[in-house]
Amino acid sequence: MGVVVPFDEGRSASESLEPLLQLVKEDVEAINRIILDKAVSDVELIPQLAHHLIASGGKRLRPMLALASAKMCGYPGSGHIRTASAIEFMHTATLLHDDVVDESDARRGRKTARLIWGNQASVLVGDFLLGQAFRMLVEVGNMQVLKILSNAAAVIAEGEVMQLAAAKNTSTTEDEYLAIINAKTAALFLAAAEVGAALANRPADEQAAMRSYGKNLGLAFQLVDDALDYSGDSRKLGKSVGDDFREGKITLPLILSFRRGNDAERAFWNRTIVEGDISDDDLDQAIALMKKHKALEATLERARAYGSIARDALAIFPPSAHKAAMEEVIAFSVNRGH
Amino acid sequence: MGVVVPFDEGRSASESLEPLLQLVKEDVEAINRIILDKAVSDVELIPQLAHHLIASGGKRLRPMLALASAKMCGYPGSGHIRTASAIEFMHTATLLHDDVVDESDARRGRKTARLIWGNQASVLVGDFLLGQAFRMLVEVGNMQVLKILSNAAAVIAEGEVMQLAAAKNTSTTEDEYLAIINAKTAALFLAAAEVGAALANRPADEQAAMRSYGKNLGLAFQLVDDALDYSGDSRKLGKSVGDDFREGKITLPLILSFRRGNDAERAFWNRTIVEGDISDDDLDQAIALMKKHKALEATLERARAYGSIARDALAIFPPSAHKAAMEEVIAFSVNRGH
Repeated sequence: MGVVVPFDEGRSASESLEPLLQLVKEDVEAINRIILDKAVSDVELIPQLAHHLIASGGKRLRPMLALASAKMCGYPGSGHIRTASAIEFMHTATLLHDDVVDESDARRGRKTARLIWGNQASVLVGDFLLGQAFRMLVEVGNMQVLKILSNAAAVIAEGEVMQLAAAKNTSTTEDEYLAIINAKTAALFLAAAEVGAALANRPADEQAAMRSYGKNLGLAFQLVDDALDYSGDSRKLGKSVGDDFREGKITLPLILSFRRGNDAERAFWNRTIVEGDISDDDLDQAIALMKKHKALEATLERARAYGSIARDALAIFPPSAHKAAMEEVIAFSVNRGH
Repeated sequence: MGVVVPFDEGRSASESLEPLLQLVKEDVEAINRIILDKAVSDVELIPQLAHHLIASGGKRLRPMLALASAKMCGYPGSGHIRTASAIEFMHTATLLHDDVVDESDARRGRKTARLIWGNQASVLVGDFLLGQAFRMLVEVGNMQVLKILSNAAAVIAEGEVMQLAAAKNTSTTEDEYLAIINAKTAALFLAAAEVGAALANRPADEQAAMRSYGKNLGLAFQLVDDALDYSGDSRKLGKSVGDDFREGKITLPLILSFRRGNDAERAFWNRTIVEGDISDDDLDQAIALMKKHKALEATLERARAYGSIARDALAIFPPSAHKAAMEEVIAFSVNRGH
């Protein structure tokens, strides 16, 4: 099931995370060691639960961005390793709390921590990981990095609350939705890209460029996620097609389909999303409506536009292997899953 | 209902927070302004929920400790205000998450935020407040203060997980319980007392003295809380007598009663706490068993012992109004509610 979205089926080397991974391989290994080390606690539940998520094959995309950004900006020190590890902890804490808030049962094709250990443990271990993240950042000792990431922590939570407040509201506008994903997703991409330039003490225009790269990459990443939820391959996705639909989650494909739809179609969205009255073939109907209104194509078109902004933001940096890898992350993010 | 605990009924001036409150009145007003300011967000749910807890008559004990400690240590700047505000935000975030984890319906005599706005909002607004706390600490710009409070954030969460893991386990030892309350309660008292000395750049022995004061005060405070839950006046308590019992929470009065009890009594504790099979007159029976084994008296005796350690820790500081007020906080903590 799923719309065929007009993308190349073949995956070229430039559309994977491989080039980036090869460049920062040693640093990623260092991060993986730190992550295991900092998830240690005498309280057994903490490493159990933390390892379930952290050691279970996340892409490490956000920390790799921080590493690549630091290296592209010529940072000579080692603080980028701990900074990137803290970013992964912040991301993991958010996932733990998200799954509780969304009552999710699966993530990356595995049972969620909350399903195995309960909501209570997920909330508290998330708090622990956030505390550990700030501890690591204090070890790095760069006040600007602390500023960037404490800011991100507050903005991400604010975005999650915005999303909660907009839940099941089919009349959410595209602009309102953009504000939500700017906060809940793009803010951490932005911060990950920015800390590299901050560690390297680059001038303001380069830090602004990295912020712009990270933010727009994050927006593109989230929008492609949204489209994949209605069109992707469940095996590659690590979750089922239609999860957002079944959870009544408002995303751009739905917003566009609702706005472009007629009265009968809006009644369909209101019944399924607002009232949560979903029967077996409603997902097929939802996907058919998205196809009719080219809502997935439009969502991916927006994602490509943000991807272009991210690419242009990098233009002021001289050519380098790290720059090329960061450009390829854009291609990966925009084209993945298709 | 409730055991008569051997304390004076009369409340002298030296057993209230008044002297401290008078000394730091202006600073507390400044904190209250900052707290309202930093709980602002375009996302309506955030100030609504934050004000419910923050503006609803907490004692501000932890931030006042930070203020008094800074002043006693001769800190001439203004960073203690934001630091203390951040501490109150951290405390509030913990309360929000605690109520979700404990499924509590009432706090300080009012409905909990989670009962009004739901668990989801409580989790996310807690995260937001924690993010705002670190933002404020970055504004203060003192790396040692950041270290103390990021450490506290991780330790508190670790303590909460420990408590969760020990839940309904009647064979928890007193030492295990002490480790839990050291982390979940005393760590923030410790940090609040320590940051004052850190801001004032006092020598290591004075910083250690403040840590000892805060930690032992926090232990005393928690143990009195535990005793009050079985013996207090519901109106003063802002919660019902027996909440811990009904929630199956392991606290020192229960640990002591279980250990000092005979087989029939242990069977009673296991039925009520482990199996959660509680009938109407079981709370009376629980209190009677505590009376029989002098468990509340013993709990308060421990609290007084920690209070003495806290008082002795302050001995190296010369006499001052702030020192006297901090000593009175000990008397207040040990004697409150009785």
